[in-house]
Amino acid sequence: MLIVMKPGAAGQEIDAVISVIQNIGLRPHPMPGATRTAIGITGNTGPVDGRRFENLAGVAEVIRVTKPYKLITLDLRPEKTVVRVGDATIGGSELAIIAGPCAIESHDQAFAVAKAVKQSGARFFRGSVWKPRTSPYAFQGLGEKGWKIISEIRQAFGLKIVTEALEASHIDLIEQYGDVIQIGARNMQNFSLLRKAGRSKLPVLLKRGMAATLEEWLLAAEYVMAEGNYNVILCERGVRTFAQHTRNTLDLASVPAIRRISHLPVIVDPSHGTGSAYMVTPLARAGVAVGADGLMLEVHNHPELALSDAAQALTPTEYAQLIRQVLAIRDLTTPLITDTPAQSQAA
Amino acid sequence: MLIVMKPGAAGQEIDAVISVIQNIGLRPHPMPGATRTAIGITGNTGPVDGRRFENLAGVAEVIRVTKPYKLITLDLRPEKTVVRVGDATIGGSELAIIAGPCAIESHDQAFAVAKAVKQSGARFFRGSVWKPRTSPYAFQGLGEKGWKIISEIRQAFGLKIVTEALEASHIDLIEQYGDVIQIGARNMQNFSLLRKAGRSKLPVLLKRGMAATLEEWLLAAEYVMAEGNYNVILCERGVRTFAQHTRNTLDLASVPAIRRISHLPVIVDPSHGTGSAYMVTPLARAGVAVGADGLMLEVHNHPELALSDAAQALTPTEYAQLIRQVLAIRDLTTPLITDTPAQSQAA
Amino acid sequence: MLIVMKPGAAGQEIDAVISVIQNIGLRPHPMPGATRTAIGITGNTGPVDGRRFENLAGVAEVIRVTKPYKLITLDLRPEKTVVRVGDATIGGSELAIIAGPCAIESHDQAFAVAKAVKQSGARFFRGSVWKPRTSPYAFQGLGEKGWKIISEIRQAFGLKIVTEALEASHIDLIEQYGDVIQIGARNMQNFSLLRKAGRSKLPVLLKRGMAATLEEWLLAAEYVMAEGNYNVILCERGVRTFAQHTRNTLDLASVPAIRRISHLPVIVDPSHGTGSAYMVTPLARAGVAVGADGLMLEVHNHPELALSDAAQALTPTEYAQLIRQVLAIRDLTTPLITDTPAQSQAA
Amino acid sequence: MLIVMKPGAAGQEIDAVISVIQNIGLRPHPMPGATRTAIGITGNTGPVDGRRFENLAGVAEVIRVTKPYKLITLDLRPEKTVVRVGDATIGGSELAIIAGPCAIESHDQAFAVAKAVKQSGARFFRGSVWKPRTSPYAFQGLGEKGWKIISEIRQAFGLKIVTEALEASHIDLIEQYGDVIQIGARNMQNFSLLRKAGRSKLPVLLKRGMAATLEEWLLAAEYVMAEGNYNVILCERGVRTFAQHTRNTLDLASVPAIRRISHLPVIVDPSHGTGSAYMVTPLARAGVAVGADGLMLEVHNHPELALSDAAQALTPTEYAQLIRQVLAIRDLTTPLITDTPAQSQAA
Repeated sequence: MLIVMKPGAAGQEIDAVISVIQNIGLRPHPMPGATRTAIGITGNTGPVDGRRFENLAGVAEVIRVTKPYKLITLDLRPEKTVVRVGDATIGGSELAIIAGPCAIESHDQAFAVAKAVKQSGARFFRGSVWKPRTSPYAFQGLGEKGWKIISEIRQAFGLKIVTEALEASHIDLIEQYGDVIQIGARNMQNFSLLRKAGRSKLPVLLKRGMAATLEEWLLAAEYVMAEGNYNVILCERGVRTFAQHTRNTLDLASVPAIRRISHLPVIVDPSHGTGSAYMVTPLARAGVAVGADGLMLEVHNHPELALSDAAQALTPTEYAQLIRQVLAIRDLTTPLITDTPAQSQAA
Repeated sequence: MLIVMKPGAAGQEIDAVISVIQNIGLRPHPMPGATRTAIGITGNTGPVDGRRFENLAGVAEVIRVTKPYKLITLDLRPEKTVVRVGDATIGGSELAIIAGPCAIESHDQAFAVAKAVKQSGARFFRGSVWKPRTSPYAFQGLGEKGWKIISEIRQAFGLKIVTEALEASHIDLIEQYGDVIQIGARNMQNFSLLRKAGRSKLPVLLKRGMAATLEEWLLAAEYVMAEGNYNVILCERGVRTFAQHTRNTLDLASVPAIRRISHLPVIVDPSHGTGSAYMVTPLARAGVAVGADGLMLEVHNHPELALSDAAQALTPTEYAQLIRQVLAIRDLTTPLITDTPAQSQAA
Repeated sequence: MLIVMKPGAAGQEIDAVISVIQNIGLRPHPMPGATRTAIGITGNTGPVDGRRFENLAGVAEVIRVTKPYKLITLDLRPEKTVVRVGDATIGGSELAIIAGPCAIESHDQAFAVAKAVKQSGARFFRGSVWKPRTSPYAFQGLGEKGWKIISEIRQAFGLKIVTEALEASHIDLIEQYGDVIQIGARNMQNFSLLRKAGRSKLPVLLKRGMAATLEEWLLAAEYVMAEGNYNVILCERGVRTFAQHTRNTLDLASVPAIRRISHLPVIVDPSHGTGSAYMVTPLARAGVAVGADGLMLEVHNHPELALSDAAQALTPTEYAQLIRQVLAIRDLTTPLITDTPAQSQAA
Repeated sequence: MLIVMKPGAAGQEIDAVISVIQNIGLRPHPMPGATRTAIGITGNTGPVDGRRFENLAGVAEVIRVTKPYKLITLDLRPEKTVVRVGDATIGGSELAIIAGPCAIESHDQAFAVAKAVKQSGARFFRGSVWKPRTSPYAFQGLGEKGWKIISEIRQAFGLKIVTEALEASHIDLIEQYGDVIQIGARNMQNFSLLRKAGRSKLPVLLKRGMAATLEEWLLAAEYVMAEGNYNVILCERGVRTFAQHTRNTLDLASVPAIRRISHLPVIVDPSHGTGSAYMVTPLARAGVAVGADGLMLEVHNHPELALSDAAQALTPTEYAQLIRQVLAIRDLTTPLITDTPAQSQAA
């Protein structure tokens, strides 16, 4: 951190700032210049809240220099993390496809969708048993009944199960019956839940919060990793903006931005990211073209009857076409990306 | 809900929509017009996810008519809710002041601030014992040690204690030692926590989420009320926008907007809502002038040494001046507001 | 438009609404229902500002049904518009590449970049002679001196010239020396300028405003077309959000959203859309994969010396690599897109 | 500006950055530290686009230190600007009220409203003769016919006329018939128009752009002042956010934020800032309580028949009540504000 004093700051004002720095246990480095003095700060174990200095007399500006994260950075780990789930991987050479219905609604629905997912070559099946719904009056998921169905799908198709945890007890159940713990956008800063997931042996798929900056998102991943669980997958699912033609605004630039800072794999969810079935396929192509490690997709055997997120679910036929398209783009872009200097600079 | 068909929609397409409506257990009301047909829907107990119809053939537009909430509405309860906490009230004739440090840091700090709060005539003391922090490396609150200090303050000053719960177990502790359960912005859609708070006997202060629409915020209150706890206080604390001169953009228009729809009291937090001490007093004046039922304020005996949110804390002297100003504005505006036809229309 | 009355609205209140509708020259269609009355409105030549009804007694909700545009719609013209500029096209089978420096700075700079642009096979050269700059103290473009350079490039390389007009007189000059009139994001709602461009014979490239909804953007195009100029190209260049890892948030979902409504071609500008050179290539790939008709790109022979937008300019080498990548993706996706049912539904 | 090099940056990389700084005519100040080198930059006449350095090898971060404006600052002029329009003032001790219809529609409408405005004691009459409308099919204002009406109002009531200019020729007409040139939100970065207004003798009321940061807004004022016109009044009118309960989100924190930086007067427009008549009075109270120098208000003798912005116009009766309320708050807060240390620090 760097504190820039006003041009006319008095010696006493500078001393007062230095004294505050020392009082909070840090080391001040005053650097007098021709027109003003700047004071560097070191010795902090974590980030310092620079705003405490903004109201001190004589202070012109407080500038944060150190980035606040450690474990997610390429500085710490220069090669990319490949998350292994049994024989499947996320972040490696294969394009990870996580597909399934928004919520498990019935045995028939779940099996019909799982069959289409399996046929497409995907390795991961998604399906919520607890649904975080904006309204208390909306369908909230099948709960434990849903687990029975999911267990059968896991056995019957050999698909890895990705399910969202809404509270600590859910993580225990996912550890018993599932393969990947999903933390949803609404819980991205539910720090108790993040810490609990950080103590699990299962990988954690961490969705970006609705209004999360890149820094907040990466710090949420840091919460999980700080507890010892390094298998974190980031998932871009769109952010809230003024735009009204989509449910969320899918921010595909977050993919190269994360690549430049972090070794963690990042996937894209064009279903929640757009909210409309007709947009999912074009944005899935874009997500793979931008360099994502995978896609999360909602599929339903009867989208018009779905109990949640009906408008964004693909039919099995649409889904199969999407997969053909994105695999072709992946095959094409993998060697292209290696060829890009800007990208290789980051990797 | 109203489904508007395209001008040239075929009879079969209209029948197919009707059939979907019937299949989900609702009653369709087709209304053929000169150029197109609209189909009304009734019979729903909760809101219907209209997007399921958007991709059906022949559908031009899906229009939601029914508002999705019930318990928070003036339709349900035309007179304003007054939340009682012992002999103090929120939503009644007195201006509720909830003041204190961001976090309890030490016995001396908490007592010094509580003394100033008590002297100002405020009835509520705020102070977190668990802090939701963006970074895992930042100060996370004193935890149980903090409870001891808070209990002493409650006894010594007779102030009502308002503290944030981050997980279910915290609610149990607040019930033992505190008076009002605060649900923070980051947990506004932590539905498990909302339900648990809904089963408590204590009032719930529900902060608006960082990117929450009015509807989502009111539906979060509906989650609490649906469990039987009708003592909910809403707290506007600013939303995330592109603006960079404040930490959040304080949306004071939410106060009259809520008044028009809901009987719940609403207070304003200009400390988090701006993030800078020099803005807190002007925005506190504005909050009272707009008609809020109270204010939530951060005060610290040594703001420059605060372990969290240092830049937005007022000194006891600044705080005392603020209170004098807002009480004068409250005295002035109370009869004025009664005089306003637009407001009385809502009340 | 549809006006929904409150359940208990009095007959007099309904009559009053009907009377207001008649007073503004429109035709009311009252539709009494079991629990409430709705009133449809027809006869409007343009859109009706529905908010005028919101404050009338007894009104519960005002719902807009008619979309406000005409000329840009697929209803009006079901096949896609192909804009022809000499022997080049935008919106047809070729991928339109518009590349060049942010601003014309010197003869040497412009010629070095134009050479790279020509070699890549691109048909359009961009380069501002007047620069809209946030600060009055920043480089404002070469003005008329720039025109001399651009004319020479047009002659020497046979590239079509795309230049931004900041005021009416600029359009006259572009008609003399250039090929396509660009209306920048800051002027998207400069309606005088739009009308003037609408009376030109040259095609108009209309950038999306920084905070423009899709509807506002399309209505800006409607302004140009209403004057008789149907050769409008839309350009997505990112919108302003809370995100800080990019200069703007590139909203690629606008491409399929426009396709569904409008026959106009749409291109993507990943240079302004991200603001960072290292992101331009991945987002250019994404833009082509999502189905854009072309790309607008900033190239500079010495990006580190550029007088404006230095951080987002590609070197000629990076640019050449980008072009190879996007052409490969275009070749791949063109038949794929034709194969997509959701897309063909729109076309 | 400060360029922070990476910890391991090579001596050659540092030299390369120094060389780029010198090549653009500035002076580098390398400051080697224990773990890394920072390079300060001086000698710039205007702001330097720091992003040009971000992609150079070895650069960790580019930090802007100098603020980009000069003429608007308290550094330049420590006492507040009072804009004089005849015998009326904006920014002085009186609360400036600018009221009138959104657009001049007819002689009767304009005179009925002007009468109410005059009776309230307001000194300024607003009313557009050219309306910037999102749709080309909406009412665009009376144009020159409107001027005749406005001239009569000016003469009959002695009110000062505030009218929006959409293009350069409008400024000439306002100079002939009006008193204050309004630059609307959509034209806040129409730099040609700002420069033309900067060469006028009339004061300029500059509305904040829909998505303008404080810095962009102040730099737009700087454009006007750089041409020699120092009589600029800033007008907060809300910004675009995800919120849907208001037309715009009124950002009242911009008032103290501007006070801290600039000597220019700032007023608030709660009519456009909320878009709903029922919210205008509460937000007008809040605007005065926060410390604004005035208000801009829309009044219509028959709001339900207004040709534009019908939903936000007050009736003359509602307007008269609003004025009584805000004058009372102004009387109360003027001495209070003087009493506030945080404010006096800025003044």
